[in-house]
Amino acid sequence: MALYLTVLGSSSATPTAQRHPSAFLLKSNKKRDYFLIDCGEGTQILLRQAGIRMQRISRIFISHLHGDHFFGLIGFIFTQNLLGRQEELHIYAHKPLKTIIDLHLKTEKTILQYPLLFHPISTTKKKKFLLYEDDTMEISSFPLLHNIPTNGFLFKEKGRKRLVSKEFIAKYNPTPEQIANILKGYNFVDEEGNVIHSKEITCSSDNHKIFAYCSDTAYTETILPYIKEVDLLFHEATFMEDLAHIATEKYHSTTKQAATIAKLAQVKALMIGHYSARYKDTNTLIEEAKTVFPNTLGAFEGSTIKI
Amino acid sequence: MALYLTVLGSSSATPTAQRHPSAFLLKSNKKRDYFLIDCGEGTQILLRQAGIRMQRISRIFISHLHGDHFFGLIGFIFTQNLLGRQEELHIYAHKPLKTIIDLHLKTEKTILQYPLLFHPISTTKKKKFLLYEDDTMEISSFPLLHNIPTNGFLFKEKGRKRLVSKEFIAKYNPTPEQIANILKGYNFVDEEGNVIHSKEITCSSDNHKIFAYCSDTAYTETILPYIKEVDLLFHEATFMEDLAHIATEKYHSTTKQAATIAKLAQVKALMIGHYSARYKDTNTLIEEAKTVFPNTLGAFEGSTIKI
Repeated sequence: MALYLTVLGSSSATPTAQRHPSAFLLKSNKKRDYFLIDCGEGTQILLRQAGIRMQRISRIFISHLHGDHFFGLIGFIFTQNLLGRQEELHIYAHKPLKTIIDLHLKTEKTILQYPLLFHPISTTKKKKFLLYEDDTMEISSFPLLHNIPTNGFLFKEKGRKRLVSKEFIAKYNPTPEQIANILKGYNFVDEEGNVIHSKEITCSSDNHKIFAYCSDTAYTETILPYIKEVDLLFHEATFMEDLAHIATEKYHSTTKQAATIAKLAQVKALMIGHYSARYKDTNTLIEEAKTVFPNTLGAFEGSTIKI
Repeated sequence: MALYLTVLGSSSATPTAQRHPSAFLLKSNKKRDYFLIDCGEGTQILLRQAGIRMQRISRIFISHLHGDHFFGLIGFIFTQNLLGRQEELHIYAHKPLKTIIDLHLKTEKTILQYPLLFHPISTTKKKKFLLYEDDTMEISSFPLLHNIPTNGFLFKEKGRKRLVSKEFIAKYNPTPEQIANILKGYNFVDEEGNVIHSKEITCSSDNHKIFAYCSDTAYTETILPYIKEVDLLFHEATFMEDLAHIATEKYHSTTKQAATIAKLAQVKALMIGHYSARYKDTNTLIEEAKTVFPNTLGAFEGSTIKI
């Protein structure tokens, strides 16, 4: 199993000529439909440029209601209607966004031809909570530390059902019925009466991957339990370390703060982004984060990584 | 005097990987500030890519409230605030847009640090009416024929005050006082008592240019008096002629309809745009329009023409 993350927008609030506001596409090789995480202005055009079929996006997760994270959503919703979408579109976001969507629909006298389902994200829950679950994926949310209600997201693939180990099969040549019983959790007894425990001879068929998304947020260790040991953590790094005072004031993070969170959470890899427009070259931010957490990569528009 | 038109977005409602929703920048070499006509999603990024200083845009004219003509406005307004704008920003648009702007400001708890002045465009006036006037420019609006209230715009440079002709000065060598009187409209009497009429010896110092913007609209000859003999007419041409029935149904125009309007109005040049996403190559649309009105050019992203 694998997850693929495509960066559509890596800028913070003010876009630049090269960098677009926040938007990320997440795919699983086990699912036909895609997830969109944040939807800054221009996302629909970036999706087209990346050759991604918008109709396959089934669920959109908006971290918070600062414009650079959702100003592309209304255009996306309307374009889907023009393109004849029929599939359900689910939006997970804070409640006031529903009012904005409704006002746009009313102003343009538009009745959507597809089901748009809005799922308000709770602002009262202080811990991790489930947003969505199916056979292959479990998606949760947890609060971040920003100047308005803001949520992180955790995308967790479900592991396949367990398999009986190859070594056991080679040694004992069990019947299909015996294998089924072992997978149900029954222990195996060999011809000499030895008990071989089910747990010892079954294994997960594959690793399931976990992706955590944390933007926008100030440095906060409250998120550590939720993102512990994830395969990829996206953590905003709006500023370099010398502007830590501005980061604190604006409830954003620096490169080293993002890297420290990655280190403390023992994640496998860190991606930073949400760069301030003041930085022409983002490599300096990545290099600075690497001094704390070496396995850091930078978000840049159009890139796709396998998690 | 001269006007310069930069095309930012030439697509119709559904953007493509290459074409963006409607947006046009108009500059005059006599004015420091710029005008923005329509503001589709992504306009602020396109302005950055074109190297245009957004703070210099003083007035934005929104033709109608279909999303492809204004979904970039909210982002523009917020980014200007982040960039520390202090100059007034004037929006000319239909009234419901004010409600949308206000809801966004309220949702994001944002108080703009610069004056935003909203000028509602009348939906009851059936003829041309003045929107704005200063020393160098007169901007009017007139109704188009679309499925919601939609307005065209007329940008008319003001000619400089009249000058006394060089030939007269060479022949009679008038005093400064005589010249001033002639410019006030008094007639000149030469030494032999001949009356030379002021009108005959004064001329406009320069040509003033006129640009007309007509999008979105079905074919309608009601606009002819307003756009007569303009220097450049932008007229939408969403479809080619074989889809005239769809154009009529959707209150849009075809290439030949746009060209016919240009021909009947005896404009100097026609620019078509607002192309349907179905056309990969827009040259075929331009060629088709040229069969009716030879001096047709096509809108394409990033191009600037001197009117």
